[in-house]
Amino acid sequence: MKKLNILLIALSILLGSTTLSAQQNLWRGEGIVSPEVNADNSVTLRLYAPEADKVIVTGDFLPQQRIEHAEGTALIPGEAAMTPLGNGVWEYRSEPLPTELYSYSFIVDGMRDVRDPNNVYAMRDVGSLFDYFIIDGPRGRLYSPQNVPHGTIARTWAEMPDGRERRMAVYTPAEYNKSKRSYPVLYLLHGMGGDEEAWIATGRVVEIMDNLIASGEAEPMIVVMTNGCTKHCAAPGYSHEGMWRPYMSGSMDGSFEEMFPAIVEWVDRNYRTIDKKEARAIAGLSMGGFHSMQISKEYPDMFDYVGLFSAAIFRGDSNIAIYDSLEQKIDAQFARNPKLYWIAIGKDDFLYEDNVRYRELLDMKGYRYIYEESEGGHTWRNWRVYLAQFATLLFKDAR
Amino acid sequence: MKKLNILLIALSILLGSTTLSAQQNLWRGEGIVSPEVNADNSVTLRLYAPEADKVIVTGDFLPQQRIEHAEGTALIPGEAAMTPLGNGVWEYRSEPLPTELYSYSFIVDGMRDVRDPNNVYAMRDVGSLFDYFIIDGPRGRLYSPQNVPHGTIARTWAEMPDGRERRMAVYTPAEYNKSKRSYPVLYLLHGMGGDEEAWIATGRVVEIMDNLIASGEAEPMIVVMTNGCTKHCAAPGYSHEGMWRPYMSGSMDGSFEEMFPAIVEWVDRNYRTIDKKEARAIAGLSMGGFHSMQISKEYPDMFDYVGLFSAAIFRGDSNIAIYDSLEQKIDAQFARNPKLYWIAIGKDDFLYEDNVRYRELLDMKGYRYIYEESEGGHTWRNWRVYLAQFATLLFKDAR
Repeated sequence: MKKLNILLIALSILLGSTTLSAQQNLWRGEGIVSPEVNADNSVTLRLYAPEADKVIVTGDFLPQQRIEHAEGTALIPGEAAMTPLGNGVWEYRSEPLPTELYSYSFIVDGMRDVRDPNNVYAMRDVGSLFDYFIIDGPRGRLYSPQNVPHGTIARTWAEMPDGRERRMAVYTPAEYNKSKRSYPVLYLLHGMGGDEEAWIATGRVVEIMDNLIASGEAEPMIVVMTNGCTKHCAAPGYSHEGMWRPYMSGSMDGSFEEMFPAIVEWVDRNYRTIDKKEARAIAGLSMGGFHSMQISKEYPDMFDYVGLFSAAIFRGDSNIAIYDSLEQKIDAQFARNPKLYWIAIGKDDFLYEDNVRYRELLDMKGYRYIYEESEGGHTWRNWRVYLAQFATLLFKDAR
Repeated sequence: MKKLNILLIALSILLGSTTLSAQQNLWRGEGIVSPEVNADNSVTLRLYAPEADKVIVTGDFLPQQRIEHAEGTALIPGEAAMTPLGNGVWEYRSEPLPTELYSYSFIVDGMRDVRDPNNVYAMRDVGSLFDYFIIDGPRGRLYSPQNVPHGTIARTWAEMPDGRERRMAVYTPAEYNKSKRSYPVLYLLHGMGGDEEAWIATGRVVEIMDNLIASGEAEPMIVVMTNGCTKHCAAPGYSHEGMWRPYMSGSMDGSFEEMFPAIVEWVDRNYRTIDKKEARAIAGLSMGGFHSMQISKEYPDMFDYVGLFSAAIFRGDSNIAIYDSLEQKIDAQFARNPKLYWIAIGKDDFLYEDNVRYRELLDMKGYRYIYEESEGGHTWRNWRVYLAQFATLLFKDAR
């Protein structure tokens, strides 16, 4: 053990140049713990900011603030002042919190978006990294790895008919490698500014699927995620397009919908899939909900399960052929009796009225769908819940 | 286009609660670009810190500082003062830099480890996240995705003989999915405090292998990474062990070496491998170099290629059976004529003397090895170079 200790000390002191933080922490001997989830389900956050005059924490675990601006009213995350402990460390302890995955950042003397240097659990949403923590309970456990069989998440590449390669994130369930059977497929689409990493990082798709499949609530299935912005072949930093700061990019020009059959064909060729309508689902959030609506009606024999999460309905330019004649195409889709057409949105979502109009259209025509209305707005908190709800409804008779 | 613009604006203003940063940036309208790599290969870094008195940047692109302390001398990253521009933004422009991947952080009024909120490219090394940027040139290009066929990186799980699942990160080359042939395997091990994510995030293994295979400098091969700390089955946050702050944990008690044949067996069972000594390599950095040395001599018929990168030689407790009788086991290994025994270390590495002693042992016995001595110390900058050098020497006759 002595040799090992000496090695540890030597490593800690002399570390490499890229590991400066560990080294400096050792010398400063701060030992700050943040975030710390307490026994009563409150969280304590701490930040070392020795010369700051004012430190604020902001995050979605605090009551939202309602802000009036030129375009209307917006809900933004709450803020709370942190307390200086006198040793350079600032601290904030929250109220006991409902089970959830929460994100936060600090504001130090007007400098926003300060990340917690003591928290390595960060997720990227579009162009920002957020620290997060999880409060235990039913929802927190659903979003956390449990002691259950785990599926595989692979980042791989598909060759498209135009010769370009396209990055695909593919989840295969735990039993996939041990079995010879074929599996149904859920195509899961992100929103504007997102990419094939969004459902993995912020949507917790791997944890949700592992846990729902292990409990028997969801059927074992493959989940495929690809980039809904056709001009990008991969998430930022993963292609020869270089390193750029992600922005609110997307494809609502028909190009993604046109590409989709080639994506499905690639998946069917490269994985043990059940190549049938009743074993295929498509769902997405916001722009991805728009895509799911458009793709499922454009190829009415492809998907028996459709999920529209806070979908940006009616946002396509009807001068684009693929977005034209919406009603007739919806008629053709519903004439083929999809097994599930599932719509969910939060009461505060800015796309709420679009979804009301769309449901009126479906109601007028007498088409069957399931509608879930939740609290809250256009948030990942809702989309994770929608995914978990939707996944349990899929492929119950597809084996 | 008008509809799309309205949707963009609405999304940007009303975003979800987890995307507060994008929203706030829009309102503040700062539009800060950082890092900005300039045409002359200098980098400009910018930070909005309106009330700060002093902002410093630290990183491995600045000349190192030599620090004397109780244990001896240490080299730590340099620091440079940033300049206030008067609008709350602080700026620093470096000298033109050699091609490399560099990491950095800010120090704002004594608050260290401040990450750049405008840079989404972060990598974790043990218990800290670091922002990074890449300066173009031969080395920068090797570490960046190019317009070449890309391999697959999968995070999957292996069942070990004790019934526990163990997370494995497996790179398969671009041609793997299109061919029916079998491939050689490189087992690539991390250092103390690292995990199966280390070579991917900080070691750039996917980019390096894609680029070297595409250029023909390296043979197509599978690369397998697993956790060298046997008490953990996965990197932090990816198992039921929960979320914890990574620390300098490892296994130097013989347990990892004992487990290794089961790992190789699982890989051979689950991938199209060439199940032969001449198609197997093992290499690692620091503790992983120690593991590579121990494992390759413990199972002398398993690996024909061995790479010791800044290896922690002689750090095992010889009371542990697997670390006992080192010389006899080395004799047995070299009696079987390994094709390549490759040792590399930097002149400033704190393990340099251990490696001198080890080479003296090999020299005394007349065993063949290749030795590469580089500048610098115990750093990822060296380990990326060592990986690229070592990979080009492997499996040239394994097809």
